Amino acid sequence: MTSDPTLPSWRPGPTRDAVVRFLNDAESLPLEARVACFDNDGTLWCERPSYVQLDFFVDALRSRSRQDPRLDDRPEYAALLSGDPAAIHTIGLPGIALALVELFEGMTPDRFTDEVRAFLSRGTNHRLGRPLSRCTYQPMLELITELRRRDFTVAIVTGGGTEFVRAISHDLYGVPPEAVVGTLIDYTYGRDDSGRPTLRRAGTPQGVANEGPAKVSNIQSQLGRRPVLAAGNSGGDRDMLEWATAGAGPGLALLVNHDDSDREFAYRGTAETFAEVEPITDVAARSGWTVISMANDWQTVFSED
Amino acid sequence: MTSDPTLPSWRPGPTRDAVVRFLNDAESLPLEARVACFDNDGTLWCERPSYVQLDFFVDALRSRSRQDPRLDDRPEYAALLSGDPAAIHTIGLPGIALALVELFEGMTPDRFTDEVRAFLSRGTNHRLGRPLSRCTYQPMLELITELRRRDFTVAIVTGGGTEFVRAISHDLYGVPPEAVVGTLIDYTYGRDDSGRPTLRRAGTPQGVANEGPAKVSNIQSQLGRRPVLAAGNSGGDRDMLEWATAGAGPGLALLVNHDDSDREFAYRGTAETFAEVEPITDVAARSGWTVISMANDWQTVFSED
Repeated sequence: MTSDPTLPSWRPGPTRDAVVRFLNDAESLPLEARVACFDNDGTLWCERPSYVQLDFFVDALRSRSRQDPRLDDRPEYAALLSGDPAAIHTIGLPGIALALVELFEGMTPDRFTDEVRAFLSRGTNHRLGRPLSRCTYQPMLELITELRRRDFTVAIVTGGGTEFVRAISHDLYGVPPEAVVGTLIDYTYGRDDSGRPTLRRAGTPQGVANEGPAKVSNIQSQLGRRPVLAAGNSGGDRDMLEWATAGAGPGLALLVNHDDSDREFAYRGTAETFAEVEPITDVAARSGWTVISMANDWQTVFSED
Repeated sequence: MTSDPTLPSWRPGPTRDAVVRFLNDAESLPLEARVACFDNDGTLWCERPSYVQLDFFVDALRSRSRQDPRLDDRPEYAALLSGDPAAIHTIGLPGIALALVELFEGMTPDRFTDEVRAFLSRGTNHRLGRPLSRCTYQPMLELITELRRRDFTVAIVTGGGTEFVRAISHDLYGVPPEAVVGTLIDYTYGRDDSGRPTLRRAGTPQGVANEGPAKVSNIQSQLGRRPVLAAGNSGGDRDMLEWATAGAGPGLALLVNHDDSDREFAYRGTAETFAEVEPITDVAARSGWTVISMANDWQTVFSED
């Protein structure tokens, strides 16, 4: 029997009770069933005013554009560099994401990792006035620690780029790269001019973006096990949350509700269900998920230095 | 400083010396660089007279064919059920493998895992007179233990089915499913008649077989790190072995040479190089790999109960 959970940043109440109940119930599970999957953006760390990965891409694009101004001619890059919301909206985030993948074509994975880490170490969330590395949610870090004490394998299942999140997952969450499931890119394996083996990023993604039902299939492909805890905050997490609670034994689906305009942001994700778009919190209520009110359930929001 | 390696099943000599030297040198590596990738068939356990996964498939096919004799009409299945080498050769192993993937279409991953484990627990290597679960190589198990003592992440990188190897990797090698990189199949995520989420095997593979350069790309996709030790025994492992020794720091490429007709089998893998087929041991000699002579370098071959 593991000792009582230590979740000091969670306020007492029904949400914390549900988490503690799950942690206690999970001790009945065989070790190999103890798998927890966390979405990253908006679930483990702040995703507003913009995704950190997008900030990283724009930063890299600015730096490359100074070297090679012809990059500005490409509409996707021009829209990003100008920061014009209308131009970005017209092209759409999927098209921009594809163009950004091409920006790193030919780069080695190690170099990419170094660039991501350098950006994270110097980047700031200006709206929050916090370094990016301190925009993680302290209550979630405490939950991860408690899960590990119970021999859970803790994984990150992100719609973002796998390599991007892997570059920071160990330092931020203690999660090793093989436990990060995200949107993959292709690689090209060959030899350089001196005959040395080289692996380089290709300019194309591998499969579809890791959102919705793809999260479930990719969890199976890459982790090989069904989670019994899944945490998310948006429609792209819906299938994963349903899957985590589809078994006969203990299961917990956690939804972070961003209702805290004082300490973070107030916004609500949506999900397409029954051919209509409804608030993800409505889906949660119907599905028996545990909704975390950031304003009410968390005593502390952000991790401190 | 970790204490001297304990490798009692390795005979003293240049091969053991090279392994010990690498283990000592690896202590200079940062923790995140400590990754070791092992091929499975013929590297961690016996692959003769036939692949265990093929035996499993044939066993499953026989059992299904008793329920549904129409299966025998399919040429790929008929060839396997008859055991006719000429018929199998005419169709070819890739075509047969595809047909066998279809045989499990619609099955849940859990059910598939249960079937694999049941087969492994009752199966025998008749030529060796050993239970399948004791056809693993004791010296490799000792090496894995030593790598773990040095905080290595130990992964299996197999040409076989990912799900097949995951079903047994923890019990045989202590390797968790997320550290198994193999040939993937597709999944279908949906709902059953009662509305419950279900994930089922599709009848098609996901991407190409995990052999040759695909092993390198898939190591990056699924593990996110370059190994510094790779072990294999065939041409399909060649790229992975080259990749493991492509860095500036310590690296070890191990090739198991099956030269022990007394205790195991005597056969030699081949590799296609420079548009010719040559023995993999020749490639090893040219590439500076460490070749393990099963006959000379291993005091004990198989793990005991």
